[in-house]
Amino acid sequence: MVGGGEGAFIGEIHRQAMRLTGCIDLVAGAFQRNADASRRFGASLGLDAARAYGSYTELLTAESALDEQHRIDAVAIVTPNDSHADIACAALEAGFHVMCDKPLATDLEAGLRIEQAVTSSGRIFGLTHTYTGYPMVIEARERVAAGELGNLRRVSVSYLQDWLGAKEDASSSAQAAWRVDPARSGEAGALADIGTHASNLVEYITGQRIASVAAQLRAVVPGRALDDDGAALFALQDGAAGVLSVSQVCSGAVNGLKIELYGDKASLHWAQEHPTRLTICHRGQPDQVLQPGTNMDYLSPAARAACRTPGGHPEGYLEAFANLYHAFAGAVSTFPDTPATPGFATVQDGVAALKFVRAAVTSSRQQSTWINV
Amino acid sequence: MVGGGEGAFIGEIHRQAMRLTGCIDLVAGAFQRNADASRRFGASLGLDAARAYGSYTELLTAESALDEQHRIDAVAIVTPNDSHADIACAALEAGFHVMCDKPLATDLEAGLRIEQAVTSSGRIFGLTHTYTGYPMVIEARERVAAGELGNLRRVSVSYLQDWLGAKEDASSSAQAAWRVDPARSGEAGALADIGTHASNLVEYITGQRIASVAAQLRAVVPGRALDDDGAALFALQDGAAGVLSVSQVCSGAVNGLKIELYGDKASLHWAQEHPTRLTICHRGQPDQVLQPGTNMDYLSPAARAACRTPGGHPEGYLEAFANLYHAFAGAVSTFPDTPATPGFATVQDGVAALKFVRAAVTSSRQQSTWINV
Amino acid sequence: MVGGGEGAFIGEIHRQAMRLTGCIDLVAGAFQRNADASRRFGASLGLDAARAYGSYTELLTAESALDEQHRIDAVAIVTPNDSHADIACAALEAGFHVMCDKPLATDLEAGLRIEQAVTSSGRIFGLTHTYTGYPMVIEARERVAAGELGNLRRVSVSYLQDWLGAKEDASSSAQAAWRVDPARSGEAGALADIGTHASNLVEYITGQRIASVAAQLRAVVPGRALDDDGAALFALQDGAAGVLSVSQVCSGAVNGLKIELYGDKASLHWAQEHPTRLTICHRGQPDQVLQPGTNMDYLSPAARAACRTPGGHPEGYLEAFANLYHAFAGAVSTFPDTPATPGFATVQDGVAALKFVRAAVTSSRQQSTWINV
Amino acid sequence: MVGGGEGAFIGEIHRQAMRLTGCIDLVAGAFQRNADASRRFGASLGLDAARAYGSYTELLTAESALDEQHRIDAVAIVTPNDSHADIACAALEAGFHVMCDKPLATDLEAGLRIEQAVTSSGRIFGLTHTYTGYPMVIEARERVAAGELGNLRRVSVSYLQDWLGAKEDASSSAQAAWRVDPARSGEAGALADIGTHASNLVEYITGQRIASVAAQLRAVVPGRALDDDGAALFALQDGAAGVLSVSQVCSGAVNGLKIELYGDKASLHWAQEHPTRLTICHRGQPDQVLQPGTNMDYLSPAARAACRTPGGHPEGYLEAFANLYHAFAGAVSTFPDTPATPGFATVQDGVAALKFVRAAVTSSRQQSTWINV
Repeated sequence: MVGGGEGAFIGEIHRQAMRLTGCIDLVAGAFQRNADASRRFGASLGLDAARAYGSYTELLTAESALDEQHRIDAVAIVTPNDSHADIACAALEAGFHVMCDKPLATDLEAGLRIEQAVTSSGRIFGLTHTYTGYPMVIEARERVAAGELGNLRRVSVSYLQDWLGAKEDASSSAQAAWRVDPARSGEAGALADIGTHASNLVEYITGQRIASVAAQLRAVVPGRALDDDGAALFALQDGAAGVLSVSQVCSGAVNGLKIELYGDKASLHWAQEHPTRLTICHRGQPDQVLQPGTNMDYLSPAARAACRTPGGHPEGYLEAFANLYHAFAGAVSTFPDTPATPGFATVQDGVAALKFVRAAVTSSRQQSTWINV
Repeated sequence: MVGGGEGAFIGEIHRQAMRLTGCIDLVAGAFQRNADASRRFGASLGLDAARAYGSYTELLTAESALDEQHRIDAVAIVTPNDSHADIACAALEAGFHVMCDKPLATDLEAGLRIEQAVTSSGRIFGLTHTYTGYPMVIEARERVAAGELGNLRRVSVSYLQDWLGAKEDASSSAQAAWRVDPARSGEAGALADIGTHASNLVEYITGQRIASVAAQLRAVVPGRALDDDGAALFALQDGAAGVLSVSQVCSGAVNGLKIELYGDKASLHWAQEHPTRLTICHRGQPDQVLQPGTNMDYLSPAARAACRTPGGHPEGYLEAFANLYHAFAGAVSTFPDTPATPGFATVQDGVAALKFVRAAVTSSRQQSTWINV
Repeated sequence: MVGGGEGAFIGEIHRQAMRLTGCIDLVAGAFQRNADASRRFGASLGLDAARAYGSYTELLTAESALDEQHRIDAVAIVTPNDSHADIACAALEAGFHVMCDKPLATDLEAGLRIEQAVTSSGRIFGLTHTYTGYPMVIEARERVAAGELGNLRRVSVSYLQDWLGAKEDASSSAQAAWRVDPARSGEAGALADIGTHASNLVEYITGQRIASVAAQLRAVVPGRALDDDGAALFALQDGAAGVLSVSQVCSGAVNGLKIELYGDKASLHWAQEHPTRLTICHRGQPDQVLQPGTNMDYLSPAARAACRTPGGHPEGYLEAFANLYHAFAGAVSTFPDTPATPGFATVQDGVAALKFVRAAVTSSRQQSTWINV
Repeated sequence: MVGGGEGAFIGEIHRQAMRLTGCIDLVAGAFQRNADASRRFGASLGLDAARAYGSYTELLTAESALDEQHRIDAVAIVTPNDSHADIACAALEAGFHVMCDKPLATDLEAGLRIEQAVTSSGRIFGLTHTYTGYPMVIEARERVAAGELGNLRRVSVSYLQDWLGAKEDASSSAQAAWRVDPARSGEAGALADIGTHASNLVEYITGQRIASVAAQLRAVVPGRALDDDGAALFALQDGAAGVLSVSQVCSGAVNGLKIELYGDKASLHWAQEHPTRLTICHRGQPDQVLQPGTNMDYLSPAARAACRTPGGHPEGYLEAFANLYHAFAGAVSTFPDTPATPGFATVQDGVAALKFVRAAVTSSRQQSTWINV
């Protein structure tokens, strides 16, 4: 991993996602520019001290020198956008596969440079457009591809946030600062940062590229050099028309990515803030609400393969479960000092449940007589 | 880990949850009764072959013999309910902490036996009542404790499923078979299996025990020995009244756990199938809809600590992210054979996004002229 | 109409509903006990002064004396529950049809008295269980009758309000006062007042009577003589089990009537606060969301006949429309004094819309050039 | 009324809305071009035969000749768009107030002609932009005016339908036919028909006019002369940016009018298909969900004045009530032949409810013993 040191939001997300796969080990990193800090941070993650580096060049050189069995297979890039191209090209040229945070780069030229490096190196290159990893987004793509919507006519997509809504927000965190700086973000602000999630989502679900666009971008907050708000009319390759709205200054919008697609047969609705529901509406029919689940037979194989739990155990289920284990691990680590409120159910709670069962069974056998628990 | 071998649902959930904590290593297990099968399964998880055992007694003996630094800290029990008590007591007596799947045991006597073992061993014992790990459930508890609802008056909780709705369902899987078998499930069926989730959720959020109950349990599907459906009136310690419904034969109900609490000041609504929203209703005021997020300042510290992502990135966000990494790892593992549809965004997708940005910026500068992408 | 004078809530609702039918004329009434007040109130409704009476006996006598063409056809009773029986019996015996507000009477004996009067008089008698008039409730009944849910297994119904939640609420209005008074409400409070809506809704949709019940009723607010909160387990004729919750003291609950029915094939969900949606869930299928509309071909004829507008024009559409006309009528009545904000769109608003159309058409023809409106 | 004869949709809606006001009497009409048909239709509405005319000119002449007390006060125009201007101007010049269905006219010139007639006649002129009659839309306007959203930044509005989605739809009804005919609809199709509802809603809620627009209109269905789909970027007078989508060919969209407004303080969401909820989102606060009701003290006086029922009795409540009365009136009109399923609750239903109450009270007094009903 390159980037993602102390306090970085997206780097930690990448690490948690890797862990969850159960098949990726994070074994090396250039987390921060300061070599000592990078080392300390690597140690906090349980990494071998020798493999926490102070720069990506150091990382690439050192890892390339290891034998094939021990060296890293791939590099995850979670740095600000302006450094993606250099790091990605160097990693690809050194023979490593690359997973890179979005957007690809700060401008088209840098992006094309990466594309060339991918081609010439022949390595695998992935971009983390997160929203395409949701089972219901995969289902949406499958249904569009299967023709359930018919010919597409209209697309509506918007991605609205409010966390850069005030002037002072831009200096409130490192993540905010580079997003409003043209030197680091490139030619566009909100459009590049989150608008590309929206455009990618359109292209992913429809299987078509956006062919043309008429846009209006604006810097709403005084003093901003880059757009923090904007909208566009667009056309897809096959002629469907669309509107795209993007903003990081719309108060009350937390992380509002949503998409609607309308065809001549049916339409489809998905919102990232309620990712476990996909609504499909056929003309003159009841609306259908689909949900994920490894056992949901009406889903496409691709969508089911992206599920980890059966139907009705929405995706946060694993995190809820992990919270219990985390609290338990915490209690174990401070044992025999135990927390007053442990964060997981205790044996007393379990006994209380069994007393409830016993009382309910007894009451039921006695024609619903009231029984003390 | 004891239990959770090939094909087990809840064992895999436990493992994924452990991974997600980032601080728990699964290093030993007695996954299946057949020692060879257990070993093979352990190997598939990357475990040291010597530490995949054929029985829990073997596991406890062998691990106890290791020195403190290498032996396991805790045992996770994910076997059917009838074996919880024996395994838990043995593990506790061997000096290990225990995390056990719910319900605690098949009957109250077995539960009390575990309680005694916890007391005499002085070890930590946890039950995985999953739903109490959701940030919004934690928030609900905090708000009730802080008096936001006032004195509780009425509670409504239900946990309805349909996966045992037909006679043949009981023989469709190992998980189903033991749930309808009194010898392995104990004196109650649906009530013990999921009704205890509901009763625990009531007790967790209210901070009160259920004091008395009037119940009616039924075996709706002909030939069942245990209840597969039922309901109860109940009273909490402080006098609030409640109704609890539980069923595994209600067609169309996937995993419908939901709870409503009403006090003399306000009420509160949460449903497990939409776990990222908590609704609070004060008399004569607009309803309030709360959501999780590490940066949601209106949440209690306890709820925020249980969040992994900022607001608007609902809990499935991590799984979506992990899906991308999983697909990437798959592509890396079969390299240079690469999949036709890779399951993650490619460099071409990234370039398309940058072309979109470039076209939109150009269009915007030219007063929204249409620009080809 | 008997009852429903100055300030009465339900009387005014009855009158508006009559008007909306387009086929009922209110021509006579005994609105208040004071004959003069009744006359003044009748006049405010545009009634002939001679037909606004001071008591129901006076009304029945006088109307009976009129010839058939002029006298009333039916009597609407909107008085407190304790007077229903006397008025209804008298009206039926005088040969009039009767529409009566629910519940039928304050106790079973009075109810049976009315039943006898209906039988002996042979007149039509209707009770306004409002919720059975919703198109989606009618659709629910039709679907249950057609077997879409299969054999019913479980029913959950609740009707929770908060408007009597505090001690002082009982004296805040005439409607509140008689509801907590055993002399006027009968043997039950909330159960009779709104619990009967819930029980009727169950019986209406299922087509079955409730066969047995195990209940717990409580007066939560100190000093109340009648139940203001309660719950019951119940069984339907054919063996389905149910829970019913009722309360007028659950803070944050405005008028929360909702019902869920589960069969061995599918389930069905409806909530009065969102009356235009009926959700039907089949095991292993996407949930279906139905909506009313005269043109919704998937609805039963009975449900469609109860719709006044096409799909997507929910039922408040008429009221919204009526609000415009009401504002217009107000402006006409004070003409030439005209209101500053008229409450309906003006010709200037219409011209603005046409300017928008003209500008949009022009912009579109010029490839989306920006055009001033 | 001019227009609105046999089978006309919007004419009947106007009549029902008038009835609901309780203060408007429909006493004259030129419902159809054929004088006899108009007379027959007027008779079916209970009108005096002499006042059902064969043309609007006849109507205006005849009514003007009546004395002030008997002649109509105002004319409601519910004819196709191309006739609005002539009728409206004639009615205004004849001294009548006018309520006209939207849009004002088929083109801007005709609209300006009406505007002049309004000015010169000094009469009241109203346009039925229905959606501005919803209490929650009124509340939205009041909140924006009070500054709750701060400075507006972004508006998103869309009005999508599917009823003209196929070629053959245009010839399926009279309403469809004139909408796709430039001779009768004017220079725009969907944009004029429903896009003007959307633009009016923006202007109504924001209190600002749309200042400029960049649009793309399309005829998606082959052979259409007018737009049936389109979108526009727009700017409000004070600089907020917006997107507007409009379509009558988006399959699965029934009558999808919805609007979102974002300011620098908060945002606001309303959808016509769920008109009883208004959501307001402040940055960093729980979302607030508002609902209508005569007793909802948190609403503005203007919104409360537009409510007919207390909170929790959503707007369809009156229609549900009216359905009962309608069924009752039907039974009365065919008496003594009575319908098998009467469409209203009978005395037997009322007795059943009282038996339920009696059984529940008895059960409760006996500690929830099961009691047969």
